[in-house]
Amino acid sequence: MLKGFKFAAVEAAIKKPGRKDLALIFSDTPAVAAAVFTTNKVKAAPVLLSQARIGSNKCQALLVNSGNANACTGKQGLVDAQESSRVLAGKLGIDEELIQVCSTGVIGVPLPMERFVNAIPPLVDNLGKASLDDLAAAIMTTDTFPKTSIRKGSINGVDYTIAGVAKGAGMIMPDMATMLSFIVTDAVIEAPLLQDIFKKAVQRSFNAITVDGDTSTNDTCLIMANGAAKTAVITAESDAATEFARLLDEVLLDLARQIVKDGEGASKFVEIKIKGAASDSEAKQAALAVANSSLVKTAFYGQDANWGRIFAAVGYSGVQVDPDRLALWFDEVQMAKDGIFAGGDAEEQGSKVLQKKEFCVTVELGLGAGFATIFTCDLSHEYVSINADYRT
Amino acid sequence: MLKGFKFAAVEAAIKKPGRKDLALIFSDTPAVAAAVFTTNKVKAAPVLLSQARIGSNKCQALLVNSGNANACTGKQGLVDAQESSRVLAGKLGIDEELIQVCSTGVIGVPLPMERFVNAIPPLVDNLGKASLDDLAAAIMTTDTFPKTSIRKGSINGVDYTIAGVAKGAGMIMPDMATMLSFIVTDAVIEAPLLQDIFKKAVQRSFNAITVDGDTSTNDTCLIMANGAAKTAVITAESDAATEFARLLDEVLLDLARQIVKDGEGASKFVEIKIKGAASDSEAKQAALAVANSSLVKTAFYGQDANWGRIFAAVGYSGVQVDPDRLALWFDEVQMAKDGIFAGGDAEEQGSKVLQKKEFCVTVELGLGAGFATIFTCDLSHEYVSINADYRT
Repeated sequence: MLKGFKFAAVEAAIKKPGRKDLALIFSDTPAVAAAVFTTNKVKAAPVLLSQARIGSNKCQALLVNSGNANACTGKQGLVDAQESSRVLAGKLGIDEELIQVCSTGVIGVPLPMERFVNAIPPLVDNLGKASLDDLAAAIMTTDTFPKTSIRKGSINGVDYTIAGVAKGAGMIMPDMATMLSFIVTDAVIEAPLLQDIFKKAVQRSFNAITVDGDTSTNDTCLIMANGAAKTAVITAESDAATEFARLLDEVLLDLARQIVKDGEGASKFVEIKIKGAASDSEAKQAALAVANSSLVKTAFYGQDANWGRIFAAVGYSGVQVDPDRLALWFDEVQMAKDGIFAGGDAEEQGSKVLQKKEFCVTVELGLGAGFATIFTCDLSHEYVSINADYRT
Repeated sequence: MLKGFKFAAVEAAIKKPGRKDLALIFSDTPAVAAAVFTTNKVKAAPVLLSQARIGSNKCQALLVNSGNANACTGKQGLVDAQESSRVLAGKLGIDEELIQVCSTGVIGVPLPMERFVNAIPPLVDNLGKASLDDLAAAIMTTDTFPKTSIRKGSINGVDYTIAGVAKGAGMIMPDMATMLSFIVTDAVIEAPLLQDIFKKAVQRSFNAITVDGDTSTNDTCLIMANGAAKTAVITAESDAATEFARLLDEVLLDLARQIVKDGEGASKFVEIKIKGAASDSEAKQAALAVANSSLVKTAFYGQDANWGRIFAAVGYSGVQVDPDRLALWFDEVQMAKDGIFAGGDAEEQGSKVLQKKEFCVTVELGLGAGFATIFTCDLSHEYVSINADYRT
């Protein structure tokens, strides 16, 4: 049981009425915190505000709305973000510098501040009445299901919990903090170590998924650790730190996979593995080129074992490639070796793999020890439908 | 009337029977030639062969097939490409080094050499019986219409012609020679000048369009000038060279626009202009990010004046951006200024622009004099359908 945190979710009718779209995470005491924000140069107002505040490594409350991104809203956007946190701080009776604010939704439209601010008192009154699922549901935009993940650990017999929520689903691309995800834990850990472990876990999870190669103005990934479980302090290079990092990895990877599975219109979950690259970074570059290729992704959707398109994507990715050394597998089925079709019944067997809901594509470059994994989905008719009509 | 060139097109049933899929361009005398090939590191066999041969700047015949790319076919692919040119050279009675070969179609499947080679004698016998349109039709894959363009010029009262064909339609991306396009002219021009003018024209046309950001293993753009019009020799920095370059620009831009209009499943033709960037290359980088964004392209398809997605794409493009200086127009309608919504009836007017078949998106970065234009199309349900089922 997660200690010392309360959640709340209410309807503020930010975009339209009919669902809870304003949520709050509150810690009984100020928690140590770490965050990763979008690297997009066009940052939403809440990102600018939260980024400035996180320097203190302290956070007691997180206010998040869906339905409006408060992005491309200029100075008024910043004023609005500050105003919402000021009102919340007053109602909670805490320093507003301890509040992080996040928004997700339509870009370029000012926040409906009257409805927003009016919803804050009932939001605070709701604290403790919302579940992790309610929190996850309140931050959804085009997501089709709420995304949560929980792991439990213990130090010398004292239990602690790591719980997280996330929302996607388009505009998911590595190295951009990727989407909204909030992690809370009652373990006792100091800020520098938490920051170090968190950033590495984000690299292996949220920064290893891609839906469409687009990256948002609002992506934020934040963790709060309030120490309420009263475990021993987790210190660097201890067994407890290793275990905490492993559990945090699991939570983030679980959430990241859920985001890809809920990729807009996705019908396939695909793991792209590049082996034998000149370096790990070249492997990641090649894997991203494959994972973001519209031609590759539509072939996945069509269940077409079109390995040639994958080689073509590797070829234009910009990494070192020797075409005569390329090999490719769909799961265990070798489709190509030495740059050409592997022959035999590979076509038939490979096509069977692509009919599965989840499969793995492995490309061997045969040049070095560079390795990377990227998780992605297919490009479907539904992706087009969802994004053609998003604002209406 | 184009002098000294003959075209031919026959059915070789490369992929399946029912259409002419093997074509030939033949010049009565060896022509000076220049070519731009794909920069993809996975190059098709015909590209490797033609690239080696073009060093001579001479070409008398171009053999091209659709239905099979002869890519990812290893050493056998090279043997097959050489064999086809050897058979053709024998039948034509010319040096095989004067033959360029091109292929487009499915990747990773060996050429059906028996059918291919058997079709060469009837192909040569057909010379002079095919029109420019027949040639353009024979090289189509997912194209829905043949693409041709013709311009006429004159030097001191002696007329000459520039004629071209091209095929798209997916896998179109700048800096990759982009697709197949063959240009023939009977003007008299020396190889170095032809090469210089041609490469610049390709930059402004085929390297300024993008359909899906994917780049092919087979892209080739070739020009042959056989001098049969017996004009005065076009020399560098002459008025004749300026005029020839202008006409060649028009032919290539016309073909490039046709390719985008025939972009797989495209329903909109969109010109992306970036102004005020720190440099021309940054402007091009930002324009490409916008033009290749799946979220932007689906919004075009949905006729949704979602200018925020365009700012987001500029923001992650990697170029210098000051969010507070961004401005955006759909045609003449200003949607945003100083990074925020322009207000008034912009939404209503902007939506009307997006209902048009062709429109222009202009983004002003407000930083410098950098400028670039990229031509692109929307991302539709039809794109997904075409590419999901391409091989079947």
